[in-house]
Amino acid sequence: MPEYKAPQRDIKFVMQELLNCEQHYQNLGYEDASLDMVDAILSEAGKFSEQVVAPLNQSGDAEGCHWNDGVVTTPKGFKEAYQQYVEGGWPTLAQSVEFGGQGLPHSLNTAITEMFSSANHSFAMYPGLSHGALATIEAHGSEEQKQMFMPKLVEGNWTGTMCLTEPHCGTDLGMLRTKAELNDDGSYSLTGTKIFISAGEHDLSDNIVHIVIARIPGSPEGSRGISLFIVPKYNVNEDGSIADRNAVSCGSIEHKMGINANATCVINFDGAKGYLIGEINRGLNCMFTFMNAARLGVAYEGVAAAEAAFQGALTYAKDRLQMRSLSGVKNPDGPADKIIVHPDVRRMLLTQKSIAEGGRALVSYLAQLVDIMHAEKDEKKKAAADTKLALLTPIAKAFLTELGFECTSHGVQVFGGHGFIKEWGMEQLMRDTKISCLYEGTTGIQALDLLARKILGSKGEILKPFGAEVTAFCVENSDNEAMQEFIQPIMNFGRDLQKMTETLGMKAMQNPDEIGAASVDYLMYSGYLTLAYFWAKMAKVAQQKLAASDEDKAFYQAKIKTARFYMQRILPRAAGHAACVENGASAMMALDEDEFSF
Amino acid sequence: MPEYKAPQRDIKFVMQELLNCEQHYQNLGYEDASLDMVDAILSEAGKFSEQVVAPLNQSGDAEGCHWNDGVVTTPKGFKEAYQQYVEGGWPTLAQSVEFGGQGLPHSLNTAITEMFSSANHSFAMYPGLSHGALATIEAHGSEEQKQMFMPKLVEGNWTGTMCLTEPHCGTDLGMLRTKAELNDDGSYSLTGTKIFISAGEHDLSDNIVHIVIARIPGSPEGSRGISLFIVPKYNVNEDGSIADRNAVSCGSIEHKMGINANATCVINFDGAKGYLIGEINRGLNCMFTFMNAARLGVAYEGVAAAEAAFQGALTYAKDRLQMRSLSGVKNPDGPADKIIVHPDVRRMLLTQKSIAEGGRALVSYLAQLVDIMHAEKDEKKKAAADTKLALLTPIAKAFLTELGFECTSHGVQVFGGHGFIKEWGMEQLMRDTKISCLYEGTTGIQALDLLARKILGSKGEILKPFGAEVTAFCVENSDNEAMQEFIQPIMNFGRDLQKMTETLGMKAMQNPDEIGAASVDYLMYSGYLTLAYFWAKMAKVAQQKLAASDEDKAFYQAKIKTARFYMQRILPRAAGHAACVENGASAMMALDEDEFSF
Repeated sequence: MPEYKAPQRDIKFVMQELLNCEQHYQNLGYEDASLDMVDAILSEAGKFSEQVVAPLNQSGDAEGCHWNDGVVTTPKGFKEAYQQYVEGGWPTLAQSVEFGGQGLPHSLNTAITEMFSSANHSFAMYPGLSHGALATIEAHGSEEQKQMFMPKLVEGNWTGTMCLTEPHCGTDLGMLRTKAELNDDGSYSLTGTKIFISAGEHDLSDNIVHIVIARIPGSPEGSRGISLFIVPKYNVNEDGSIADRNAVSCGSIEHKMGINANATCVINFDGAKGYLIGEINRGLNCMFTFMNAARLGVAYEGVAAAEAAFQGALTYAKDRLQMRSLSGVKNPDGPADKIIVHPDVRRMLLTQKSIAEGGRALVSYLAQLVDIMHAEKDEKKKAAADTKLALLTPIAKAFLTELGFECTSHGVQVFGGHGFIKEWGMEQLMRDTKISCLYEGTTGIQALDLLARKILGSKGEILKPFGAEVTAFCVENSDNEAMQEFIQPIMNFGRDLQKMTETLGMKAMQNPDEIGAASVDYLMYSGYLTLAYFWAKMAKVAQQKLAASDEDKAFYQAKIKTARFYMQRILPRAAGHAACVENGASAMMALDEDEFSF
Repeated sequence: MPEYKAPQRDIKFVMQELLNCEQHYQNLGYEDASLDMVDAILSEAGKFSEQVVAPLNQSGDAEGCHWNDGVVTTPKGFKEAYQQYVEGGWPTLAQSVEFGGQGLPHSLNTAITEMFSSANHSFAMYPGLSHGALATIEAHGSEEQKQMFMPKLVEGNWTGTMCLTEPHCGTDLGMLRTKAELNDDGSYSLTGTKIFISAGEHDLSDNIVHIVIARIPGSPEGSRGISLFIVPKYNVNEDGSIADRNAVSCGSIEHKMGINANATCVINFDGAKGYLIGEINRGLNCMFTFMNAARLGVAYEGVAAAEAAFQGALTYAKDRLQMRSLSGVKNPDGPADKIIVHPDVRRMLLTQKSIAEGGRALVSYLAQLVDIMHAEKDEKKKAAADTKLALLTPIAKAFLTELGFECTSHGVQVFGGHGFIKEWGMEQLMRDTKISCLYEGTTGIQALDLLARKILGSKGEILKPFGAEVTAFCVENSDNEAMQEFIQPIMNFGRDLQKMTETLGMKAMQNPDEIGAASVDYLMYSGYLTLAYFWAKMAKVAQQKLAASDEDKAFYQAKIKTARFYMQRILPRAAGHAACVENGASAMMALDEDEFSF
């Protein structure tokens, strides 16, 4: 397994030089988040991910979690590493000062989660889920609930989960059966079975706080009758101390393709005591707040996977000697050339590099929008950020996880047959990353959310704020000759996207199946184009830096070269997706169910 | 795990209706291969794969192979199943009558290997490797060697391997270090270590016959100094009976992403007794004969994977209820609609279906070319078949395994989160199939073989026989209105391929790196186009059948609808590859090695 090294230089480039986080944090009143502080935190997080989290990645995969009569034990070393994580104060970073947090910006925290996720996908999920539970309680819980649960979750000695899925429903949560019956004391008794509960049971924390969706008897059917509850593993006294065990148990853990060190649990609620959060029957709306954040978190996993696979493949490509370059011997003293000289190996490496770095720019931009949602006072700015987030979150989630997965596959291919062998660590990246294309809504579901609910649902209004930003950038650089190779493709593909959207809008009025038939190709097209915009912006910054001084010359030149690679060798894929969209739904709807197989 | 059902109707459509195997077998003198015989064999093989081989697939994956002090044990049930396989006479099917075979056509045997491979990739590899060893001995061995090794290999009581790879060389076999020193009796003593030897050691057979490449001291360096040897696990007496153990041992088995039930071995030769096959220093040439067959075998694995994933996903999509169709409720009595009503689920299913069926047509066509290579007397026909095989084998191997892998990924996506859980069997298909993109030459190596060695190496000559066939088909159908939707795209994409090839030829003269930079996109483009040709041919047959009678109407209509789906929703992807090829090598060659990471 190649060693993980946190990509400090590139993270700083994105946060500081591309997205000017110093100004951004100041504008939002994050006074503590000075550049020095950001640097220090990134540096410490890098060390922690490299030295504590990464070394447990392969052993955690090999050992997996253990289930014994409802008790789940994480792999060797996980408990100690998590303890160090808590002692280092990492869970508190972006949490409210009121509940013991450090009150630092959300986007600083997510930059760090990228590192943890590259280092060890399974490990990073434990704090990730606590974060979701915390965000839900903070947004929708009562003052009493916040006081009861948040401090321990913030410090990390308790962890959280999100309990949504049931055996017969995942995407279609309106079908859920878990029921919540009102008790005399105002609490509820929850009964039902939830599956696929990540970190649902484990030995890392003193208590586990489940956020559960359930139906109160008499509620409307479907998604309008869903309410949200807090159900702790151990009941909690009013002073916040732990009381008796609640009727929540882990029935089993799943045997999975990957993320073996994260316990994916069947959780049984047998009249478990729970507390309503938010209004009755408004549970799904409360979940949506959280879901955007969770989906952005998964988008980060795509970036993290591309980065990890890139690092592994690059190390190998610089070391492995095999065949001579077609354009002449490059390593005359050796028995063969390093495989990094071969164009097709470079194609794979640069695909990984351009997705990792381009994806990092996109998710970091989104994380800044989340900062704005948290801390901006100006409602207009907040609304614009909200609209951009709504548009770009499903794109980032689906596109970056699909491409992240592709990058892990390139990682295996660069290693040849060795990529298939566990010892090298590349195949684990593929297995771990596949989940990111599935959970928090599959690629297909993200695509429907984007095209049906958001773009067509808003009659295209949702495209405007981000579209205006991209257009302004193109206009701003229309006289800049050095930028034309980056601007022109964006303008061309952008124009086609607009036409495609209009055509789809008309077609959908005739036949709604046109939406589902186009959705994934449309999303992928949008993803390639969105990343092109961020690559153009990065190229611009690099050009400015090169013009200004000789410092870090190679870094900025490489940035421009990678932008060029992206424009020439990745973005053109969008053309294939456009052609598929154009051909419409009829071919895929023509077969009767019985005609699929004979 | 969904049950595997051999796709008898479709295999017969391809062999009998599309490729007219009756006539083909008669022309080549395969008198026993009547339609009745073909039907009977396919039917029996189907039952065997469904009832004996498939049930061991999941348990074999979970248990894996065991290594204990050089002894390798296959998972529970494998030994018994292999014994049944031998007793059923399956290994003998396409082998020479002279050595105990049934003398049936090669293409009949490969149709069956598709079934075995869908049912259980790991199991199917054991006989697959024997087949490679047999083919090598038959083509290049002396009469004495044939008598000594072939009868037992043919009956299946001995199995074979191909020992090529060493730790420091896979693709670049010229670097191999295993040495073969001449003994006084004319045999050789082999010393060295081979890795990634599939079926290198196991408990299925009485003896294992290794085909080994090694260097005789004093031979030229590089690939011109490689010779080929037969090295049995147990030495063999002149009467063919087993003698003492040879100095061949299994040092360990690999822990892998997939194909866990097939033992991937480190094989140590410690002065092991071996027999030269063919001429000294011509080993790599001998290997090439075999390699085409092996690569076609791997292409079959791509088809087999697509088929297995399709079957699993289709069963689930007809059963799982989730969400309502955008175009109106389809299952009013249920709580939700079957997911097969959703366009995006259909997109994935039809991608699988069109790749499985289109791929089956392509590999079956290639298998008939192999028949011609074995049995045709007319040297001109043989030469044309050889040229087509040389062109299409790397395309089939790389394109169908990449697409087969994609189809297994769709299988997981159709299942949503359940796809990630081992119990359902979908993730195993992904893990098992990934190896097909790696072994027998990675996708990148196939692409170089196609573009550099074969197309540019022959100045395009190699394209002519198959190109003429496709053109003739298009011309033949130019007045057939119903065929235009299938013919036009082939002509358009075909024209672009020709231009692309010419441009690449010119660019490559200036800069050979243009070849490597274009190769994989070029191969994928060629693959999409090649499959379009076979889909057009299948549509034609279906149209003729529909015009002729009412029999099997739904089957033929579905064929035409699937052809349409392929043309409208899969073939357009080629446009993206063309755009990437067009943009050339400069962007990927621009970065210095140090500029990849900072």
